[in-house]
Amino acid sequence: MIDLLINLLNIPSPTFQEEKITDFIEDWMFCHVEGVLVKTVGNSRIFSLPMIDNLPHIGLVGHTDVVPKHFEVYQRKDLLFGAGASDMKGALAPFMMLMESCSKWSDRHLNFSFVLYCAEEGTPLEENGLYHLILGEEEFLKTLDLAIVGEPTNGCIQVGCVGSLHAEVIIRGVACHSARPWDGENALYKALPFIRSIAEIKPLKKTVFGVDFFDVINVTESKSENGRTSIPGQWACNINYRYAPGPSMQEAEIEFNNLLVSTGFEKLEFTVLDHVPSAQIIETELLNKFVCFLGRQVEAKQAWTDVAQLNGIDIPAFNFGPGLTQQAHKANEYISLRDVVDYYKILHELIKNY
Amino acid sequence: MIDLLINLLNIPSPTFQEEKITDFIEDWMFCHVEGVLVKTVGNSRIFSLPMIDNLPHIGLVGHTDVVPKHFEVYQRKDLLFGAGASDMKGALAPFMMLMESCSKWSDRHLNFSFVLYCAEEGTPLEENGLYHLILGEEEFLKTLDLAIVGEPTNGCIQVGCVGSLHAEVIIRGVACHSARPWDGENALYKALPFIRSIAEIKPLKKTVFGVDFFDVINVTESKSENGRTSIPGQWACNINYRYAPGPSMQEAEIEFNNLLVSTGFEKLEFTVLDHVPSAQIIETELLNKFVCFLGRQVEAKQAWTDVAQLNGIDIPAFNFGPGLTQQAHKANEYISLRDVVDYYKILHELIKNY
Repeated sequence: MIDLLINLLNIPSPTFQEEKITDFIEDWMFCHVEGVLVKTVGNSRIFSLPMIDNLPHIGLVGHTDVVPKHFEVYQRKDLLFGAGASDMKGALAPFMMLMESCSKWSDRHLNFSFVLYCAEEGTPLEENGLYHLILGEEEFLKTLDLAIVGEPTNGCIQVGCVGSLHAEVIIRGVACHSARPWDGENALYKALPFIRSIAEIKPLKKTVFGVDFFDVINVTESKSENGRTSIPGQWACNINYRYAPGPSMQEAEIEFNNLLVSTGFEKLEFTVLDHVPSAQIIETELLNKFVCFLGRQVEAKQAWTDVAQLNGIDIPAFNFGPGLTQQAHKANEYISLRDVVDYYKILHELIKNY
Repeated sequence: MIDLLINLLNIPSPTFQEEKITDFIEDWMFCHVEGVLVKTVGNSRIFSLPMIDNLPHIGLVGHTDVVPKHFEVYQRKDLLFGAGASDMKGALAPFMMLMESCSKWSDRHLNFSFVLYCAEEGTPLEENGLYHLILGEEEFLKTLDLAIVGEPTNGCIQVGCVGSLHAEVIIRGVACHSARPWDGENALYKALPFIRSIAEIKPLKKTVFGVDFFDVINVTESKSENGRTSIPGQWACNINYRYAPGPSMQEAEIEFNNLLVSTGFEKLEFTVLDHVPSAQIIETELLNKFVCFLGRQVEAKQAWTDVAQLNGIDIPAFNFGPGLTQQAHKANEYISLRDVVDYYKILHELIKNY
């Protein structure tokens, strides 16, 4: 399996340049997985074992793209270094091996699909490979009873995910020459009470599925820039609002609006730029069984992940991967080989004994 | 004279592309100004009438470059539209005509040089044409007893100019994912008390030469920008400090430092990026006589101008031009033809009767 992982890591696959790795995986699946069926949407694939009636259908879900610049794979003791090692080729290799193993069993109690999609790191959502895969194969994907998404989770189970809304806020002053500030109004200064009010909104804890999520609102990017010798006539910022599973997108936008109103800034000018929903946690007997069997720590996913998209078509799903969250998108990304092997083993055991 | 102004305006002369207009003016001077002497430094020129011993030496000072995009000259009643009409070709034409007139007088009581320089709009100072002209011809320029700089002043006399210091201030927090703000520290939020303190520093009036200047300090450009989904780990801004004539550059930097200390922000990280001095007002009998004869309103130059460079080599100088300050750098720049004619007339009368 480690050789397979090294092969995957040695194929560069930055977002939107994933044809080569997809071809490699497809060839490998045809060679190693008996009777595999494939569905194609662009550079995304669904590889399925022949379906057996009335068995639960499990999806092993992963993406092919990586963020760091490509570099040649190398190993230092237990650590394997490569672009995408933790996020998330370290999960793809075990998924492929599991598909191979299962295909050889004479007797199994689960159906399996390996859902492989491109451009996970692409934003907006309209460029995301899973988005297009759902558009193209929604009916088939909806037959999944549970999806395990192999994003890096340090071997924990991460459930749900917070929704994320980005809005641009613009506060206008009056530009003028910086030698004569009385001719204008400094937009940054005018924005201070607003920034202060947003800064004072504390994270709001919400417990769902026994784990704690937090609603948070923050000013992230900001700027006032019409020249060094001008009193800025405009201050603009991006506000990012993250919210726990529960509210619909519409409800979240109302709450976001209420938070802005609570700043007391009159006639605030803002535009919601984009918004992805939270992932509800769809509790099913099957999901609970899997979580229980794995016996790993269950955490809230205090971030946005594609679990929300699966959730959007009613597929129970959780994040569970061998990668380290801290390594994701790092320049010299690595993964622990022991974690990869453990990950394979526990999933193999779970599936075998189901 | 209006024809000459139209000719000047019809030659495009954006900063650093001033060869053509300089050639035109040089040719014109050789044709129209008897006995003219010329000194050349790059695209800058000093045109002088033959020197007569023991007469005061007056400099008529102007620049060739314009800021707005070039467009064909047109006239609407009293207004002449053209790139650089107010800033400051509207003064160059009268200067050229004055040189021509004076050269024809059998009897005059003043020496004259028309100091024409390029790249006034260039920053930093090292790209400014007057800077290079002073480097090349400092000895000759120092023989000037008074310089009239034809920058747009709405026909008023503007004396002195404020010094200008730009500094970058960086306030560091700790970057982290915007879904988990507790992992970091928002640099913009951390900067709020500092911004508030700077905003609360009131303009400080200083009366020099009977006119009011103001020391002012402002945050102009600012930004926190390491992605929409990150808590910013750094907030950076430009601070512009303008100060009345009086303090030396070193004294001004000490005062600037004191102002930053007064914000109470500990261990503030800042770098002075560039600094141009204020213009002292060098009062001489000649300058007072000219100001008195012109009888125009005297104002403080609450901005920076090249008068400061002349001042730096001990030349008494003031800004006095027919252009409108509000028109400077405007896309559809214009000047009032009546103002141009009045400007020529009053200078002609002053010089004739001296």
